[in-house]
Amino acid sequence: MQDLERQIAFIKEIDKVKYIQRRTRLFQSDRHENDAEHSWHLAMMTLVLAPHANEPVDVLKVLKMVLIHDIVEIDAGDTFIYDTQKAHENTDEERLAATRIFGILPDDQAQELIAIWEEFEAGETAEARFARSMDRLEPLLQNVSNDGGTWKEFDVDYRKVYEKKEKIRNGSAVLWNYAHGLIEDSVARGILKKED
Amino acid sequence: MQDLERQIAFIKEIDKVKYIQRRTRLFQSDRHENDAEHSWHLAMMTLVLAPHANEPVDVLKVLKMVLIHDIVEIDAGDTFIYDTQKAHENTDEERLAATRIFGILPDDQAQELIAIWEEFEAGETAEARFARSMDRLEPLLQNVSNDGGTWKEFDVDYRKVYEKKEKIRNGSAVLWNYAHGLIEDSVARGILKKED
Repeated sequence: MQDLERQIAFIKEIDKVKYIQRRTRLFQSDRHENDAEHSWHLAMMTLVLAPHANEPVDVLKVLKMVLIHDIVEIDAGDTFIYDTQKAHENTDEERLAATRIFGILPDDQAQELIAIWEEFEAGETAEARFARSMDRLEPLLQNVSNDGGTWKEFDVDYRKVYEKKEKIRNGSAVLWNYAHGLIEDSVARGILKKED
Repeated sequence: MQDLERQIAFIKEIDKVKYIQRRTRLFQSDRHENDAEHSWHLAMMTLVLAPHANEPVDVLKVLKMVLIHDIVEIDAGDTFIYDTQKAHENTDEERLAATRIFGILPDDQAQELIAIWEEFEAGETAEARFARSMDRLEPLLQNVSNDGGTWKEFDVDYRKVYEKKEKIRNGSAVLWNYAHGLIEDSVARGILKKED
């Protein structure tokens, strides 16, 4: 198949990302967010928050990461970050999904996007650390705006939230400082449970 | 207000993009697409189709254009491309919207994004021409997959489609060649009306 036909087939395939519902809801809303909306929002956050990264980041690479990071969920489904039954990170199912879906593209593009997705998942480069901090910050902002949101809905407490969100610091100490303040405020407001 | 507070306020404000419904529908679907989903899809198309641009483009700048291009619709609303009552391009209402919404950001970022939005609207640089070709190609692909989609729904004929879509050539002759083929096929399939 010609390159262009493979690219168009990929563009059609990823339309499915718009149907993948997340647990979190839009700001001050009851409507669940889908993965396409989420990915767009992370891209916008990257554009405006990149100056707060701990180290200078290649913004184009971060954008690629956040734009593609959930495409594997077309096959593997969304895993809730606080799900203790299922490992969240880079399962075999997700690797297979990446191979199948990015594999629709011409080989060089498939290899590039699989490598970027792997880099995001590994979280070891400055770009991946920052991209992952975007992915953790957005639902925190949403839950705060929704008076607890998924924390209340799924009985998630301060300790679990702190443990997951603390990794924002790996991408940006400035943003972690802000996020930490929101978490403490949420306890004070009574929308996040904290054991004494 | 501190930079970070302005950036967070902007991030919350643009959540509204997820509620702006387009006339077009998702691929092989009855569900309308919203502007956030549309913008994400154009960003993905940019990543995979940029090699077909007539001239080498700064992909980061094209991504910024497609990610932000519909944010003004928070205030100005979506204007249907085939609406003959209302001019589609860069109305005063849209300029005011850009000033208000991007103006939530710190001044340097506001100025940068307004300039990028203006550049996209003017369509005179290689990046703007390519970004605009993405914006015209996506709904064409959707209408073809929906057996005519908005063409049938709003009685749009071959001549009007050709006239709007022909501008894809300004960004990419390769993609226009492909799009043109789809338009002719659509007439042959009976999903796009052509006067004799």
